Amino acid sequence: MGKTIAINAGSSTLKFKLFEMPQEQVIASGAVERIGFDESPVHIRYGLDHKYQEREVVPDHQTAVNIILDELIKLHIIATYDEITGVGHRVVAGGEVFKDSVLITDAVLQKIEDLAEYAPLHNPANAVGIRAFKKILPHVPAVAVFDTSFHTSMPKVNYLYSLPYEYYQKFGARKFGAHGTSHRYVASRAAKLLGRPLADLKLITVHLGAGSSITAIQNGQSLDTSMGFTPLAGITMATRSGDVDPSLVAYLMQKLNITDPDAMLKILNTKSGLLGIAGSADMEELEARCDQDPQAQLAIDIFVNRIVKYIGAYIAEMQGVDAIVITAGIGERDAKMRQRIADHLGYFGVKLDPHKNQVSGVERDLSAADATTRIVLIPTDEELMIARDVERIGHPDQSK
Amino acid sequence: MGKTIAINAGSSTLKFKLFEMPQEQVIASGAVERIGFDESPVHIRYGLDHKYQEREVVPDHQTAVNIILDELIKLHIIATYDEITGVGHRVVAGGEVFKDSVLITDAVLQKIEDLAEYAPLHNPANAVGIRAFKKILPHVPAVAVFDTSFHTSMPKVNYLYSLPYEYYQKFGARKFGAHGTSHRYVASRAAKLLGRPLADLKLITVHLGAGSSITAIQNGQSLDTSMGFTPLAGITMATRSGDVDPSLVAYLMQKLNITDPDAMLKILNTKSGLLGIAGSADMEELEARCDQDPQAQLAIDIFVNRIVKYIGAYIAEMQGVDAIVITAGIGERDAKMRQRIADHLGYFGVKLDPHKNQVSGVERDLSAADATTRIVLIPTDEELMIARDVERIGHPDQSK
Repeated sequence: MGKTIAINAGSSTLKFKLFEMPQEQVIASGAVERIGFDESPVHIRYGLDHKYQEREVVPDHQTAVNIILDELIKLHIIATYDEITGVGHRVVAGGEVFKDSVLITDAVLQKIEDLAEYAPLHNPANAVGIRAFKKILPHVPAVAVFDTSFHTSMPKVNYLYSLPYEYYQKFGARKFGAHGTSHRYVASRAAKLLGRPLADLKLITVHLGAGSSITAIQNGQSLDTSMGFTPLAGITMATRSGDVDPSLVAYLMQKLNITDPDAMLKILNTKSGLLGIAGSADMEELEARCDQDPQAQLAIDIFVNRIVKYIGAYIAEMQGVDAIVITAGIGERDAKMRQRIADHLGYFGVKLDPHKNQVSGVERDLSAADATTRIVLIPTDEELMIARDVERIGHPDQSK
Repeated sequence: MGKTIAINAGSSTLKFKLFEMPQEQVIASGAVERIGFDESPVHIRYGLDHKYQEREVVPDHQTAVNIILDELIKLHIIATYDEITGVGHRVVAGGEVFKDSVLITDAVLQKIEDLAEYAPLHNPANAVGIRAFKKILPHVPAVAVFDTSFHTSMPKVNYLYSLPYEYYQKFGARKFGAHGTSHRYVASRAAKLLGRPLADLKLITVHLGAGSSITAIQNGQSLDTSMGFTPLAGITMATRSGDVDPSLVAYLMQKLNITDPDAMLKILNTKSGLLGIAGSADMEELEARCDQDPQAQLAIDIFVNRIVKYIGAYIAEMQGVDAIVITAGIGERDAKMRQRIADHLGYFGVKLDPHKNQVSGVERDLSAADATTRIVLIPTDEELMIARDVERIGHPDQSK
């Protein structure tokens, strides 16, 4: 019994969701954005339809944490800090070390900071968020939930690149994947929806948001995933290129007179993807103008093409598939996109019912009656997964 | 009527095959290797089982051409240079310009040299070979046959990367593919073997040599291919990494204290792939020791895994496949490898007959009686394809 807060700290944002556990009821959610800028929007949703919005001066993550906790009290969401009995932190890179979520000790925090070279933008921000909460709630169990943990089940044949082997041994150059918490969550929900044990299913989970990734799940475990050493690889994303010939890194550096490879990677991470092709990173906008704008249509077509190819690759790898599971922002809201993807998968027995598909953000089997492979919509909930892991690992006695 | 010589010039090699046309009979074949080193092995096969072998001092490609033509006369393979009525040159990069093979004019040669930035190791060597033959056989039609031409039919959705669009417009950053001459040849032979029009077939051609690539062929045209802007991308190769997260280029440069991205790419091109994983670039050697050597087995498993995933991706893209076509060095000789690939494709109706598979380098349908998707072996013959293009383009009147 108690409240668990799930935290997702980015380089300039701090998002949270507060749950009453073990009921898994959301009490409040919100974010502080543009931390370190002149003015930071703060917003908190709570109760049935209450919304708090303010602009404040938030120079750092510690201040953001203080503001959130203060507002939770001022808004009477909690009476005292003591009501918060667990904190869960999303951490992007867990390397090969963290195969599951873990209670955060000083040694764990140190390791998270050491792993920053695998996620230079994310892990340091995650660590700052952890310290900020630790300062205010020093005696509350804090649990780190890693984006990569779910993928540590990948076999070597899939996670190893065809590089000099010592680069793996010395430098950890391997596929780690990401979005593991989301893939894990939607896979388990999909199994429930399909009424079959997760361990018996071959699933392909398709997480389509600003960052997008696709995972092959067999025996309930990640077998393969489209993101790579970093979340740059895989399918086309909002601003990330996904897979490109690595030769282009050198070629474009030369053409653009760039001497720092990190500067080139920044372009691949922030100026590419849908934004690079069509000038907008927003799929809703591209959907709205694709009828008049061939470049927007091209971006959509490329997005679908890369998704379809990864799905085919994973069907080949698993030698079959029981269900395609669609989730995350674009996947949950964009019925047209789901239709396009399904239209390309008829050969594998996927057939979407257009009426069932007229829906947004609910769990539903979208398959036509005569489909032999299911296509299901499962809204993701990484924060809930984090809160559950806080219960399981932060309060092991209570969760038994 | 006449003899056509097909030339494949690499940075330090010059290979040739001499055909009696239009009979397509091979009169002689051979190579000069290690051009520019202290001593260069020269070998020529001719007649039924004659073999000429020598070591000579060959400082440059012009000398190599002179030696080959001299030896053809000395060995009585030809009486005079006049017997050679056509020369065909393999050229690696044809960019978007060369959608078919072309008669070589000064302007064409200039363009081939201009395209060197797409294939810095290959195009300059190809151009040197062209000049060397032009000097000795100035009045004989010379035809350039591009590795990339077959792939110029790829739709934009497949050849465009998800990069800032101006990089395509300004710098030609797109997928070009390679091995086009091989994929084109084996596709047409496979159609004949299957007794169906090429235009009606969905084929996946799997070229497995030192360089390896996979192509999806629909309506007789290349729809998609695994190599990219350069021949580095795609599946695991003898010494090339194939696809890797582009972030690794920057990460490994930092770890290895490399400042020049080209130096990093050289590692990805020459020290990676099977060699990087298992210490040998030779699949025969890996096959021989994989029972005792887990690292050799791992390299083989990764090789198969990447092939299977590309095949699955292309089946998804074409929404079906009629036949998997296996070719090139490893594909033609390694029955175990063909069995492994087929074993992973049962879900798609591929079933290999182990008895039919006990063969090397012949055209054969390897499928079991109850297979619903064919798997066929087609030895490639790029040189013959080049000789045919010389007839078609160098002697258009005669070939009608």
